Amino acid sequence: MNDILFYSVQLYIDSLNQLSYVEDEDVLNHMEDYAEKSGFPIVNRSVGRFLYLITKLKNPKLIVEIGSGYGYSAYWFAKAIDSGKVVLTDYKPENLEKAKEYLGKSGLLEKVEFRVGNGVEIAKEYKDVDIFFFDHEKSKYLDTVLQLKTNLKSGGLIIADNTLWHGKVLQENPDNQTKKIKEFNEYMFSSKEFFTTLIPLRDGVLIALKL
Amino acid sequence: MNDILFYSVQLYIDSLNQLSYVEDEDVLNHMEDYAEKSGFPIVNRSVGRFLYLITKLKNPKLIVEIGSGYGYSAYWFAKAIDSGKVVLTDYKPENLEKAKEYLGKSGLLEKVEFRVGNGVEIAKEYKDVDIFFFDHEKSKYLDTVLQLKTNLKSGGLIIADNTLWHGKVLQENPDNQTKKIKEFNEYMFSSKEFFTTLIPLRDGVLIALKL
Repeated sequence: MNDILFYSVQLYIDSLNQLSYVEDEDVLNHMEDYAEKSGFPIVNRSVGRFLYLITKLKNPKLIVEIGSGYGYSAYWFAKAIDSGKVVLTDYKPENLEKAKEYLGKSGLLEKVEFRVGNGVEIAKEYKDVDIFFFDHEKSKYLDTVLQLKTNLKSGGLIIADNTLWHGKVLQENPDNQTKKIKEFNEYMFSSKEFFTTLIPLRDGVLIALKL
Repeated sequence: MNDILFYSVQLYIDSLNQLSYVEDEDVLNHMEDYAEKSGFPIVNRSVGRFLYLITKLKNPKLIVEIGSGYGYSAYWFAKAIDSGKVVLTDYKPENLEKAKEYLGKSGLLEKVEFRVGNGVEIAKEYKDVDIFFFDHEKSKYLDTVLQLKTNLKSGGLIIADNTLWHGKVLQENPDNQTKKIKEFNEYMFSSKEFFTTLIPLRDGVLIALKL
C-alpha cells in the first residue's frame, strides 16, 4: 500500500458510493455541486456516509454541531436518527437559511434546530449531548473540547473534521493553525477520558468515545 | 491532500495511537511483533482500535469471525463487549492455540469460543449474529456474504478486512483474486439490503449495516 496515493483511494471509494442508492440523491448532488462551485468546505459523500453509519450505531437523542455551514453533515446525522434532534449552529444566518431549504426538501425539519451565533457558546446550553460535531475554526478545537466535555454523556462521541488538515499535520515545520490541530489530536489520544481513533477519510475525521 | 502518500498518513495515525493508554499493551505488542517477525497477516493497531470503537457503539451479543488467525482482531472485539461472545474460527489448530494463549493473558477467555475448521461452514451454525468479521480467503468474500446474510440480525454488521487489497483494486487490469474483491465491494455498495462504507485504514476495512 506504501506506493498508493491517498487520492486514488478516495476516488475508488467515491466510485463505490455512486453504486449506492440514496433517498435524497438530488438534494445531496445539489449540496455537493454548490460546495464545488462556491468553494464552500463541506465533508464529502464518503464522510457523510460514515457519519450516517456511526449515528445509526449510536442511536443518539441529541447531536450538536459546532459549525454547520449549509447543513451537509447535518443532513447525514438527521437522516440517521430515529427520534431526537440535531442542533445546527453557524455565525452566518444565510448559511442556516440555506440549510433550512435543503433539509426541508429532504423532509428533515422536524429533526433539526437552527441557532445563529457562536457555536461553542450555544453548545454550552445543551447537557447530556450524545454527539458533538466539530467543524469550526480549527485552532479552537482543543479549547472547545475542554469547555464542552462535561456536557457530553458518558458513551457519547466527539467527531471532529479536518484533523489531517490537508496533510499539513505531516509537515516538519507546520504553521500555527496546524500546530493547534496536532495538539488537539495529541490531547484526544492521550486523554484517559476518551478512546480516540482517526479515520483517514477525506481530510481526516477524528472520533472519540467518552469513557 | 492529493499529494499525500497513504503511508505517511498511516504513520501519523500510528504515532497518535502510541500516545494512548491500553490495558494489555504487553500482550498487544507481543502479538504485533510476532506478526512482523513471522509475516503473519493481521490487522494493525489502528484497525484494531477502530473495531473496538465500532463494537462499543454496537454493543453486540454475538460476533463470529471467519478467519481469526491467532486472535488479534478477536482481542479488540472481546475487549469491547460487555457480555456476549466472540467466536474465533481457523483452519489451523495451532493458530487458535496461540489465540487462546494471548486472550488468556488478557483475561478474555470467558468471552470467546474457539472452533477449528472451515469458518464459513461453522458460521452457518450461528443465527442472530450481530457482527460477522471476514478475514479469510479474499476471493470467497462475495460467496460468503451470500451464504451468511440471513444469519445476520437486522441492524447487524459485516466487517471485511483487506478490501483495498494492497491497492490492487485501483489497477486497470487486476488479477482474478483482486477482481473478486472488487465484485464483493460492488455487491455490498449496490445492495439495498446493506448500507456500506469503506474505511481506508491499513488495507481497507469495509463496514456494512444490514437494513
